[in-house]
Amino acid sequence: MTLKMDVGALHVFLREAFPQVADDFKVDAVGENTITMRLRVDDRHLRPGGTVSGPSMFALADVAAYLVILAHIGPQALAVTTNCSIDFMRKPAAGVDMICEGRLLKLGRALAVTDVLIFSEGEAAPVARANLTYSIPPAAISVG
Amino acid sequence: MTLKMDVGALHVFLREAFPQVADDFKVDAVGENTITMRLRVDDRHLRPGGTVSGPSMFALADVAAYLVILAHIGPQALAVTTNCSIDFMRKPAAGVDMICEGRLLKLGRALAVTDVLIFSEGEAAPVARANLTYSIPPAAISVG
Amino acid sequence: MTLKMDVGALHVFLREAFPQVADDFKVDAVGENTITMRLRVDDRHLRPGGTVSGPSMFALADVAAYLVILAHIGPQALAVTTNCSIDFMRKPAAGVDMICEGRLLKLGRALAVTDVLIFSEGEAAPVARANLTYSIPPAAISVG
Amino acid sequence: MTLKMDVGALHVFLREAFPQVADDFKVDAVGENTITMRLRVDDRHLRPGGTVSGPSMFALADVAAYLVILAHIGPQALAVTTNCSIDFMRKPAAGVDMICEGRLLKLGRALAVTDVLIFSEGEAAPVARANLTYSIPPAAISVG
Repeated sequence: MTLKMDVGALHVFLREAFPQVADDFKVDAVGENTITMRLRVDDRHLRPGGTVSGPSMFALADVAAYLVILAHIGPQALAVTTNCSIDFMRKPAAGVDMICEGRLLKLGRALAVTDVLIFSEGEAAPVARANLTYSIPPAAISVG
Repeated sequence: MTLKMDVGALHVFLREAFPQVADDFKVDAVGENTITMRLRVDDRHLRPGGTVSGPSMFALADVAAYLVILAHIGPQALAVTTNCSIDFMRKPAAGVDMICEGRLLKLGRALAVTDVLIFSEGEAAPVARANLTYSIPPAAISVG
Repeated sequence: MTLKMDVGALHVFLREAFPQVADDFKVDAVGENTITMRLRVDDRHLRPGGTVSGPSMFALADVAAYLVILAHIGPQALAVTTNCSIDFMRKPAAGVDMICEGRLLKLGRALAVTDVLIFSEGEAAPVARANLTYSIPPAAISVG
Repeated sequence: MTLKMDVGALHVFLREAFPQVADDFKVDAVGENTITMRLRVDDRHLRPGGTVSGPSMFALADVAAYLVILAHIGPQALAVTTNCSIDFMRKPAAGVDMICEGRLLKLGRALAVTDVLIFSEGEAAPVARANLTYSIPPAAISVG
């Protein structure tokens, strides 16, 4: 499947659609059914002790799932998360970005299913895993 | 089971342990195996169009699960979320707080299981549902 | 919302659509957005030690979710489970049926969201909890 | 990490611990943090129309998660599933086995986290994905 949006187009979309959080995230790479993103960790993402907060990791997983879908269907601000299940497995390392590796497992007429692994940059063992389902508005796929 | 922390004690704990977000949340009521909390919705919780963001609802569910557990075991900053599954079902109403009704379904030696329903204040149909599991440090239950 | 199927109609549907498993399950009650079902526990549902197996509890949750949806939209064999998250919290009691209390939380155009609690009959503490999402074929709601 | 059980040892364990279902499953391969299993699809796993049932896929995911953990800690019949989230994404193909690719993402003191993809044999697109958490009895890791 040809990608409809590359890294640059995803960044433009992110800035227009989600100006409040666009600076938090960066797409490192996008390809067929895959995406690599990072959360630029900042004080506002931390809990006491220097740990990245759960909601910040949820947000990273959510935006990675969203953007890997949009890369395949084009800019559709109306796609919405319907379900996310997330496991927090290890304490994030302090002082480094968080990296998210996402996969598009299904792109259906109405639902898209993704999963992600989240790492502290430079570490091999994942900090968290998540799966997310998005509902896609009816016209999105055919219009693309 | 006697509660080990009431609404006042939970607010004190929240302010000490999570000063960055303590102002976002308020415990309306806590009882045996139940809690009612609210997210004081502010611009920083919103997406374009005035919708409360997914990560903000995740954060509300997470703090409600945490505090209903602490109400039963006492202040244990080391309890951590291990799993959350959340369904986003309806668009939140604009301009009102979000209310979260939480239940403590299991308080085990090592794991506590909770579920929550999230509503826009004044609406009967839930906006989101979630279940969360917390890992409890070994000494927490007996020490209380 | 008026129910489109009562207990008797649900049993007829179950026997026609799922003859292999219809004898395993019984609807005790169905009402607006709620259902009570039981798994008639038999040797084939057990693991060594007399514990009801995880797949048997999953099956009970799944059929309860399915039937509470059908009670509201009419017999639609094509509705399919898209997601289930289940927590196993306690060991089931031996030698008794398992009871499932299900709720219909959302009945949308394309998706229905439910949650359930599963008990050993006669016990107050839940053995398992689950949430399930079903995808509903396009014509189902309006046709009813 | 050295494996404590190979394919042969896992089959022996499965037959002793779960005699009712041991014939349903076969371990094709096990390695560091990975397992490949199959469900030998039989009439009792099918729904009308020849589709493999949801509970049968849940059972496959559950046993794959269990066995990849045991391969790393040794035979521990007391490890129990605490959580599973599963997405059903595509209709299984008729008349072929189901293949499950499992990963061990975390092996902690008390909890092990896994995820799996399930395929119809010979198909590239996954039919289902799942993540499962197991609770491990206290002595299991050190004893091994």
